[in-house]
Amino acid sequence: MRQNQLMLSTLRESPGDAEAISHQLMLRAGYIRQVAAGIYTYMPLGRRVLRKVEEIVREEMDRAGAQELLMPALQPAELWKESGRYGVYGPELMRLQDRHEREFALGPTHEEVITTLVRNEISSYRRLPVTLYQIQTKFRDERRPRFGLLRGREFLMKDAYSFDTDWEGLDASYQRMYKAYHRIFERCGLNFRAVEADAGAIGGEGGTHEFMALADIGEDTIAACTCCGYAANLEKATSRAAASESVGSHTAGPSHSASVPAIEKFHTPGIRTIDQLVQSVGAAASDMLKTVVFVADEQVVAVVVRGDHEINELKVKHYLGAEDIAIADAETVLRLTGVPTGFIGPVGLTLPVLVDYAAAELTHGIAGANEGDYHYRNVQPGRDFELSRTGDFRNAAEGDGCPSCAEGTLQFYRGIEVGHVFKLGTKYSEKLGAQFLDSSGKSQTMIMGCYGIGVSRVLSAVVEQHYDANGIIWPIGIAPYQVHLIPIAVKDEAQMQAAQQLYDRLLAEGVEVLLDDRDERAGVKFKDADLIGIPLRIVVGRDIASGQVEYMERRAGEKQAIGTEEALERVLAAVRGR
Amino acid sequence: MRQNQLMLSTLRESPGDAEAISHQLMLRAGYIRQVAAGIYTYMPLGRRVLRKVEEIVREEMDRAGAQELLMPALQPAELWKESGRYGVYGPELMRLQDRHEREFALGPTHEEVITTLVRNEISSYRRLPVTLYQIQTKFRDERRPRFGLLRGREFLMKDAYSFDTDWEGLDASYQRMYKAYHRIFERCGLNFRAVEADAGAIGGEGGTHEFMALADIGEDTIAACTCCGYAANLEKATSRAAASESVGSHTAGPSHSASVPAIEKFHTPGIRTIDQLVQSVGAAASDMLKTVVFVADEQVVAVVVRGDHEINELKVKHYLGAEDIAIADAETVLRLTGVPTGFIGPVGLTLPVLVDYAAAELTHGIAGANEGDYHYRNVQPGRDFELSRTGDFRNAAEGDGCPSCAEGTLQFYRGIEVGHVFKLGTKYSEKLGAQFLDSSGKSQTMIMGCYGIGVSRVLSAVVEQHYDANGIIWPIGIAPYQVHLIPIAVKDEAQMQAAQQLYDRLLAEGVEVLLDDRDERAGVKFKDADLIGIPLRIVVGRDIASGQVEYMERRAGEKQAIGTEEALERVLAAVRGR
Repeated sequence: MRQNQLMLSTLRESPGDAEAISHQLMLRAGYIRQVAAGIYTYMPLGRRVLRKVEEIVREEMDRAGAQELLMPALQPAELWKESGRYGVYGPELMRLQDRHEREFALGPTHEEVITTLVRNEISSYRRLPVTLYQIQTKFRDERRPRFGLLRGREFLMKDAYSFDTDWEGLDASYQRMYKAYHRIFERCGLNFRAVEADAGAIGGEGGTHEFMALADIGEDTIAACTCCGYAANLEKATSRAAASESVGSHTAGPSHSASVPAIEKFHTPGIRTIDQLVQSVGAAASDMLKTVVFVADEQVVAVVVRGDHEINELKVKHYLGAEDIAIADAETVLRLTGVPTGFIGPVGLTLPVLVDYAAAELTHGIAGANEGDYHYRNVQPGRDFELSRTGDFRNAAEGDGCPSCAEGTLQFYRGIEVGHVFKLGTKYSEKLGAQFLDSSGKSQTMIMGCYGIGVSRVLSAVVEQHYDANGIIWPIGIAPYQVHLIPIAVKDEAQMQAAQQLYDRLLAEGVEVLLDDRDERAGVKFKDADLIGIPLRIVVGRDIASGQVEYMERRAGEKQAIGTEEALERVLAAVRGR
Repeated sequence: MRQNQLMLSTLRESPGDAEAISHQLMLRAGYIRQVAAGIYTYMPLGRRVLRKVEEIVREEMDRAGAQELLMPALQPAELWKESGRYGVYGPELMRLQDRHEREFALGPTHEEVITTLVRNEISSYRRLPVTLYQIQTKFRDERRPRFGLLRGREFLMKDAYSFDTDWEGLDASYQRMYKAYHRIFERCGLNFRAVEADAGAIGGEGGTHEFMALADIGEDTIAACTCCGYAANLEKATSRAAASESVGSHTAGPSHSASVPAIEKFHTPGIRTIDQLVQSVGAAASDMLKTVVFVADEQVVAVVVRGDHEINELKVKHYLGAEDIAIADAETVLRLTGVPTGFIGPVGLTLPVLVDYAAAELTHGIAGANEGDYHYRNVQPGRDFELSRTGDFRNAAEGDGCPSCAEGTLQFYRGIEVGHVFKLGTKYSEKLGAQFLDSSGKSQTMIMGCYGIGVSRVLSAVVEQHYDANGIIWPIGIAPYQVHLIPIAVKDEAQMQAAQQLYDRLLAEGVEVLLDDRDERAGVKFKDADLIGIPLRIVVGRDIASGQVEYMERRAGEKQAIGTEEALERVLAAVRGR
């Protein structure tokens, strides 16, 4: 491609509202343009990268035995009502009516459509298992679209769905996808981790892994072991202590209860937070018992964790088997318990009390006294309040022991979720009646898995990991072009002729080349080239008189004067070596 | 691909509501499944064909110098308001609101988005011309979706847009697309004609051609010359007589007016139609003057054509420069003229009268007398009523002289519109302010063209042209697989082993093969193979003992017993010969 003809404009400054580096760079380098909040046009360079990621995904899906189909974006609302999701999906589901006032949803995901399809097409175990996938535009009306392609409202996804006759089959289908995802993200040049994740609203039994590209901008926290392969989303991560508690018998409180003095109330006027308590009392946060009241569905409960720990709402929700959970507001707490904000505690509380394992181990705890401006000290769980509901109700903390090995501790990373594999089980097949006849002629429910990749999000994730102060540095496998060929002075006949010859030879070898044939100053050309981030660069300048060009890898940044033949060879080695 | 694993079910009967052959066959052969009216899932076989058409379109667009981008389906309503189309597009435009109650349209086309984009990106003549395209899902809420993929509500399109500095540039851009379209449809195996078409609601000055796949199910009529290359959509087609009139001076009526007897009123009780007149009076329809009253915008006019001709509303509309046109209802006509339905005529009519050239040539015309139950005979245009507004107001008729050559006559065909190239001019660039600075620094408006291909519709059009009583016959360039390899008895070790060897060798040669490894009766396998329509077939049966297989081209249907090596060679010749 000749750059003179390429529909490309670079920007010196990035628009003020672009927070993420990838968003800034993709705007500045002319890969994307915003049409509305969270809605983008992929410019020719951006489209090329997107297509390369698509092709990698397609190749690896095909290799894993998945079959491509294409389902519609417009989905009849009836399907979503049948699965029970129409009411609960909330405002993220974009809804519209057709001219006959029939309701439709713009698909954010396709469980309903695929399950109905397979229900209608397959009736015998002989035609299972099957894994189907599509690469398709999805819609999700994010409350706060941001970070460019990282959280958009219209985006490209690969979604796959497996159908098996039994759970062992699902395990195998899941493993195939899990492995394919590793190959895909490796080929895209991502630094990623597959982490255990919470099942979330999509529901279903069995395991789930998120594929996280490590990046500071990531909205998820990953807890990974310093020693073994353990890695989990913080929402799911547990610690060695909690893990051993959950397999052992429930604690009856600390073992050395005899040595603790009796509980004692003391005056703490206006001291409502852990921080204030630490400052005024002088004790450590790890000696406090933090109590928070939640409304879970119709139920009201108190959850107690150590003052230095964070409550994990998801864990509480799962423990209670609730659909919805939220912190109770101050008014509700006051009405139900008579206790003003900041002074609630487990001792004598009339609500059911859920106690985190680590809190249950405290011996000289400090807790709210359920009375304005008063706290207790020397609180001992099991002695001063009941310990009938213990569990892992907190976020793992950095430095906690790894739950999966004996040596490691947990270290935290930020991650961008670029993929997700999920054992759905029978959640959808049951509701939508996807049955098959087994070998003995008995009707059974299909066992499903679903597997997503945020194809457009991968672009942003890659840029978050591959850039420097001057711009993007694409991994060669998904770069818009492999080589940027830059004659410095296009009006110099010798330079342009040499550049043209190199261009033709590279094209003949199947290399993707962008020829900067613009009549611009060298500084402008190099600045643009750095920004755009094509991984290999050949500069044709005055030294072409002695047959020399400048060869550079964008990542290394080191320029080398070499002959044109050698430049050609290096390019071919780099392109074919991938 | 092994057929045992392929997500495919064929149907013996086609669903009752599928009218078009292509719709029936694509359902029966398992290429598509309906999700809602006009909304389909492409099953794996259908997805493969769709991808092949996509790739052909992409290759030819790239070869023609167009650059691919990807615009969003969700378009802010403001853009459509700015172009003035939001109000006039009607219920075919699917509209929705986001969670903040901002209005969006689901793009049926992208003139607004692309013009705004290019306006923002390009400001100098130096960066023009440019042609941009995308392959993308479009939405149009058809009043009556039907014929499967031929008239759907969600469909795949290629749309391209060119931007030039002047009209000569547009002509060149248009020609490049015109030629690319020929290559695309040839490669898809379509029998098509490029026909002159009416500019229609999309507006703009300059030419437009439709690419019509010839097929009886087609909703358009094409008038094509028996001699020269002339071909036009009936809405646009003219005849030799009309064409020569329009370039000469307007007629003052027939030349031999002296010999015609005076006008004479006669009683025609209850005779309201041309057919009834022909029967009761005994004259030919071509001697009648048919008069129809139209409301065009605020204007009411009468249009007169010969009794054997059909009025072309579009031609009348263009003549009047009207936005809207419709036949006046009986009540309106009665109120304005006092004449009951069936008896209106041009003689003494108080409305403006538009007379078609052919009608203006009549000498002994029969026309309504503007009085219930009476007609006139011996009506002579120019003598008995004014001929100040003559023009080509009728549809060309089959057998009319060709307007473009001296010998040919017009023949009619039915066609499916698979592509459309269109000189938009400045219609959108003016409204949306797409200006550039010319070489003298003066601000000018960009000159645009737009170019569409109904990618998914091509599938249906191809099937309408390529089938027989047993099923589809895909052209090899877009077939889901190139070879259908069928071992008759999969439990026969010799057969399966030979089939497996052939399969491996074909795959190694890059041939796309579907191996029917199902344990089914030969009859079932052949019936399915015929229905699915893979163009080349190799059957491995008992003769494999003597090294022979059966080779067949689906189109010819003739089976030949040949050696496996020869079968392999024939396949490679057929696949590479395309």
